Amino acid sequence: MLQKKIKFDTLELQRFYFDTLGLESLSLEKIQEIKNMGIEMHANLDTYYYNNREDTIKDYYARSQKYVTLTQKLGISQNWSHLYHKLINLTDFNLNGSALSLQIAAFNPIINLLGSDEQREYWLPLAHEMKITGAYVQTELGHGSDVKSLETTATYDEKTKEIVFNTPSVSSTKFWPGGLGKSATHMVVFAKLISKGQDHGIQAFILQIRDIKTHKVLPGLEVGDVGPKISQINTDNGYLIFKNFRGSKTSLLSRYVQLNDDGTFQEKIKNSGKLAFGGMLKLRVSLVDNGHRMIGRMATIATRYSFLRRQFESKDGNQAPEAMIMSYQMQQYKIVPAIAAAWSILFAGSTLFGMYDHYQSKLQTKDPKAFEILGDLHALTSGFKGISTWSGEYWGEILKQSCGGHGYLQVSGLTRPHLDFGVGVVTAEGDNTVLMQQTSAYLLKKIQKGKIDPDTYEFTLSSKLSIDQEIVLLYEVRFKNHLKNVALQIAESMSKGKNFNQIWNDEYQADLVIAGKYFISHFAIKNFYDIINGKSLNATQATVTKLSPELQKVMQMLFRVHGVYQLIEEYETFYMNYPSDQFVDYFNSKKIDDLKKQFKEELQILGMTSLDIVDGFDFKDPELLSIIGRKEVKNQEQLYEELLNVVRKNPINSKPVPLGYQEYIRPLLVGKL
Amino acid sequence: MLQKKIKFDTLELQRFYFDTLGLESLSLEKIQEIKNMGIEMHANLDTYYYNNREDTIKDYYARSQKYVTLTQKLGISQNWSHLYHKLINLTDFNLNGSALSLQIAAFNPIINLLGSDEQREYWLPLAHEMKITGAYVQTELGHGSDVKSLETTATYDEKTKEIVFNTPSVSSTKFWPGGLGKSATHMVVFAKLISKGQDHGIQAFILQIRDIKTHKVLPGLEVGDVGPKISQINTDNGYLIFKNFRGSKTSLLSRYVQLNDDGTFQEKIKNSGKLAFGGMLKLRVSLVDNGHRMIGRMATIATRYSFLRRQFESKDGNQAPEAMIMSYQMQQYKIVPAIAAAWSILFAGSTLFGMYDHYQSKLQTKDPKAFEILGDLHALTSGFKGISTWSGEYWGEILKQSCGGHGYLQVSGLTRPHLDFGVGVVTAEGDNTVLMQQTSAYLLKKIQKGKIDPDTYEFTLSSKLSIDQEIVLLYEVRFKNHLKNVALQIAESMSKGKNFNQIWNDEYQADLVIAGKYFISHFAIKNFYDIINGKSLNATQATVTKLSPELQKVMQMLFRVHGVYQLIEEYETFYMNYPSDQFVDYFNSKKIDDLKKQFKEELQILGMTSLDIVDGFDFKDPELLSIIGRKEVKNQEQLYEELLNVVRKNPINSKPVPLGYQEYIRPLLVGKL
Ligand SMILES: Cc1cc2nc3c(=O)[nH]c(=O)nc-3n(C[C@H](O)[C@H](O)[C@H](O)COP(=O)(O)OP(=O)(O)OC[C@H]3O[C@@H](n4cnc5c(N)ncnc54)[C@H](O)[C@@H]3O)c2cc1C
Ligand SMILES: Cc1cc2nc3c(=O)[nH]c(=O)nc-3n(C[C@H](O)[C@H](O)[C@H](O)COP(=O)(O)OP(=O)(O)OC[C@H]3O[C@@H](n4cnc5c(N)ncnc54)[C@H](O)[C@@H]3O)c2cc1C
Repeated sequence: MLQKKIKFDTLELQRFYFDTLGLESLSLEKIQEIKNMGIEMHANLDTYYYNNREDTIKDYYARSQKYVTLTQKLGISQNWSHLYHKLINLTDFNLNGSALSLQIAAFNPIINLLGSDEQREYWLPLAHEMKITGAYVQTELGHGSDVKSLETTATYDEKTKEIVFNTPSVSSTKFWPGGLGKSATHMVVFAKLISKGQDHGIQAFILQIRDIKTHKVLPGLEVGDVGPKISQINTDNGYLIFKNFRGSKTSLLSRYVQLNDDGTFQEKIKNSGKLAFGGMLKLRVSLVDNGHRMIGRMATIATRYSFLRRQFESKDGNQAPEAMIMSYQMQQYKIVPAIAAAWSILFAGSTLFGMYDHYQSKLQTKDPKAFEILGDLHALTSGFKGISTWSGEYWGEILKQSCGGHGYLQVSGLTRPHLDFGVGVVTAEGDNTVLMQQTSAYLLKKIQKGKIDPDTYEFTLSSKLSIDQEIVLLYEVRFKNHLKNVALQIAESMSKGKNFNQIWNDEYQADLVIAGKYFISHFAIKNFYDIINGKSLNATQATVTKLSPELQKVMQMLFRVHGVYQLIEEYETFYMNYPSDQFVDYFNSKKIDDLKKQFKEELQILGMTSLDIVDGFDFKDPELLSIIGRKEVKNQEQLYEELLNVVRKNPINSKPVPLGYQEYIRPLLVGKL
Repeated sequence: MLQKKIKFDTLELQRFYFDTLGLESLSLEKIQEIKNMGIEMHANLDTYYYNNREDTIKDYYARSQKYVTLTQKLGISQNWSHLYHKLINLTDFNLNGSALSLQIAAFNPIINLLGSDEQREYWLPLAHEMKITGAYVQTELGHGSDVKSLETTATYDEKTKEIVFNTPSVSSTKFWPGGLGKSATHMVVFAKLISKGQDHGIQAFILQIRDIKTHKVLPGLEVGDVGPKISQINTDNGYLIFKNFRGSKTSLLSRYVQLNDDGTFQEKIKNSGKLAFGGMLKLRVSLVDNGHRMIGRMATIATRYSFLRRQFESKDGNQAPEAMIMSYQMQQYKIVPAIAAAWSILFAGSTLFGMYDHYQSKLQTKDPKAFEILGDLHALTSGFKGISTWSGEYWGEILKQSCGGHGYLQVSGLTRPHLDFGVGVVTAEGDNTVLMQQTSAYLLKKIQKGKIDPDTYEFTLSSKLSIDQEIVLLYEVRFKNHLKNVALQIAESMSKGKNFNQIWNDEYQADLVIAGKYFISHFAIKNFYDIINGKSLNATQATVTKLSPELQKVMQMLFRVHGVYQLIEEYETFYMNYPSDQFVDYFNSKKIDDLKKQFKEELQILGMTSLDIVDGFDFKDPELLSIIGRKEVKNQEQLYEELLNVVRKNPINSKPVPLGYQEYIRPLLVGKL
């Protein structure tokens, strides 16, 4: 008794998807044309998962070259904010962070941000055309989260007008930067500037690492690769030790600071730190947005597989002898909310990009509101980076499980996005637990200053509330009530004369992190709600309300599945935050049961429709690098045939007797140890 | 204001740990002696994570040889149930399932179970001394969960008295068996036996795969390795295609079935399937138990690291300038409940082993109760395999995050256990979602037959309940009330004439899976409660109540942290199952808040004590294969020194210019594409 699927026009959904991404000015044809160019750069599924680390890096270099050629062909090699780049990113060229992707995402922007005009003019063209390649070198063995305590020293030598870099202790060894290990010719490195015996705090410097001709590491440096990680096999994360390494005085990036010949030092403008930070925020917004693409990618594979794979005799007259696994409620429960989460994160990313543009325009007109927006944006992106990557990790594992044994094979195409993105980036670019506390600190201040009213909600309880509004209300109440309670408890502890930091770290840290999570969840749900109710997206005029009724319905159902999924998985957190008996009465268990019932029905409809819904993300087979999630595969037999053919090419199959077998196992077999 | 740690005698805890494992007859000295022998077989940390797949397999072969020598030295090579094997397992030789570990865990036992006396006599000595090596070959490309639908055929040829094996379709290609890909000389394979045109269902056969001398695959077979997986790099999971491959008639394992020369076929005894299954149950019990060791291993690493690692200025007068990360509440929240979960799973495993022995003794006396116990044991182990591996996956990810960036490095020692065990075995040995439904089916039957009384609990609400009893009660109520509701809803749907299977698959599958989970959680909590209240463990006389008061306290706190952690993380599920207003009144939010408060305090005490608590698992540094979780490391500087030294040995560091760099990146740098 399977529910009917909803029929809609895939092209309409794709158009909406690309509009949401900010590609409204490109026709679908143009988009496909560029995507096809991107596909040419893609790895070959026959070898991709079988290459060893060395060959993988080589392969990546080869594709980097194609990438640069492509940007030149499109005439965008100098213009990195160009929308074509969004599109190229969409080809998932950057899948698996790598030497070059960090150059584009971190090295180039930081020069642009912190470099003086001359430095920009000199370095940026080189960097954009990849005449140099660069790493972003911040973390040390001993300090990652606590950037202020970095120990690397950059001591100004007045005599030679040079800066002398040193690694004063093992713990100050630079450790982790992507591209540093084997590839980068240059780096932006963070170190403590000392001149005239004075410590001027952590500053950024641009330095050369390797000889351009020989690629040899320059004298005075020890550099190497940190070795195998959980994943991110493409990337050569590195370590670096300075031994009296000398750089010119101009290596100090000097947009906002100035080091004079005599060793005196000054800041050029106030608030330069904040401004610089604001510039880097765009990176974090992209990081939030990346989550939707990774989850969408994995959900696409799992969905396509679940329409092909059949398991157990079907007890449903309408089906073939064996049941398609997507027909199981549990399978829908694993996959459909993942698709909904991808859309939710995408919409949030779109809104955050909009906020970022707004911040930039306020900054240009020197509107003092700019800093306020910056504060909001900072709190939202710090927290959302956490939610986006945690979601990537969470859904990655569930979606992998949804593909049974075959999901555990790398050729499934699920492993890399899951372990590179979710599992990797929950820590990389800032540990989520640490980042979330920045959101919490912001919230605590806001509520203390009365800027969050914990007792007023956008919707008030009444019989006129729609289900969608009820869902939003639940999230708002949960967030505000929890925050209010934590704030009260902290105030009480403080009134007893306890130290604020101790209260934070020892007593309420877990609650504070949760406050951040609830805030972000509410933001995401509210944003999704607004969007299905006509809020336009990003810079575009796209709105859900302009979609066909069928697609509107799909989006509404995705909204509800997204909202109710969390309700089901963590209902306590809602219930515990009912602020009054009125709420207990209103959201009684009958109400919640009804919500769940509708959830199950819509889950099934969306499950049956999911094969078309994931087409909205428009993943082409070569982009997915997956053997089990191919759109072009028409039935199980073909699926297994292709899987088997790829597996046969695994190079270990070319040797009949494995290394070591004769030496160690033969003697056992013949009883001659 | 850090809470004081609890002081106790580590040796006492270790003794208790080993007793729980069933090693009560060995002195601690003897245990250490054997552990030291095991350590000699261990991989070398300097190369372990840097070997490619081929070298890894070679290294594994070398260690397998040592393993066989060791068992011979101990005089236990023929006696696989011997307690020394428990101890050898404890050396984690089997870390990363591999060719040989599957031989021991699956191939040998299945011969023992299904082989006739002659077959046992012939094959077992060969297998035990590793004169043959074997794989367990069941899953096919098209069918894993649904074993009944396997398609491989074994057709009896009356003329030659041979059995002809075939792979009639791509989907019937054998796929996944560990050790099959490159190593095994033999296999037990499952196929559909056909004789005289009749299908006798899935039977087990023992067949040779490779020539013992040349190691070449025999004619009539195509065999290969399935290629890189998420992890389990040691294991050569394989695929196999039969092309009119002929085996002798005696290849059919014939303890319970008989194939006569003329092709007639009969079962020798009734219920043979159940008996065989009961014999394999011990494997599943071990699988449950493995969870404790994997989580304990990862928690040991994270704990030791968290006592070394410092991050951010300490705001606590008592601490060094920088705060030890274990002092953060969030860090305690990540690690302490993992330690508690390891103990909970260990205790459950011990109880299940006891049940298994009980079943065996009933079987021996032909007590009809045997089958009843078998039913209970089956439901418990199916579900607990799910909980144990899901916990491994869950805690693996959290513990990895707790080690920041360094947790993402393979040399952290966290990657392999996490991805091999949790992430791998949630699917291997039976998909958790599918297995959990066996538990649910058992529960549904029990409640329908009135054998579970949903309205009576072990403890009744009263002011005399201890906190510990309240916790157990909450779990019991949640399980029973949820089960009761699902059962009622299913009965209602059925009374409307709906098909039972459709109700199950389309409407209540998610709720049924949850019922299984709640049942297992309650079993684990109740078991833990009983054990801290004097129930003796396994075959041993060990009880918590005989421990020193300090250790009793530690165990009680671990119990509460374990119980309340889930309450916090999924309180809804408790609240939603309050059966009456009386419960709502009793477990009001004040009560829950008090529980949480005590939880936080005990979390902190245990956090401060955790360095000693993890010593209970007695992981030696060489066993952990971790550079960040070494017990012998005394301070941060030494930690970073050692980490850096290992990382330097990563072979990719021996080549200054990486493969492909000159070819692809140089032309970019010099502007000559
Ligand atoms: C794949 C990858 C790529 C990377 N790429 C780069 C790069 O290109 N350039 C670069 O410079 N760096 C890079 N890094 C480093 C990365 O930025 C750091 O690892 C990250 O910021 C986390 O810091 P940490 O490792 O010091 O973790 P820690 O801070 O040591 O975290 C360890 C544990 O302590 C906890 N903890 C720490 N402080 C607190 C607190 N105040 N309250 C509660 N808990 C706390 C954390 O939550 C965590 O559980 C990369 C890392 C990875 C894994
Ligand atoms: C690392 C590893 C090692 C292995 N080693 C061996 C070995 O040594 N020998 C061997 O023979 N095999 C081995 N296997 C195979 C393993 O036993 C199967 O992969 C496992 O039983 C799962 O079956 P499947 O792959 O068919 O999953 P599927 O059943 O295809 O599962 C796919 C999805 O469908 C869902 N699904 C299926 N049926 C239902 C249902 N009735 N209701 C709801 N959802 C359903 C599942 O929950 C899952 O989400 C191994 C597998 C792995 C990953």
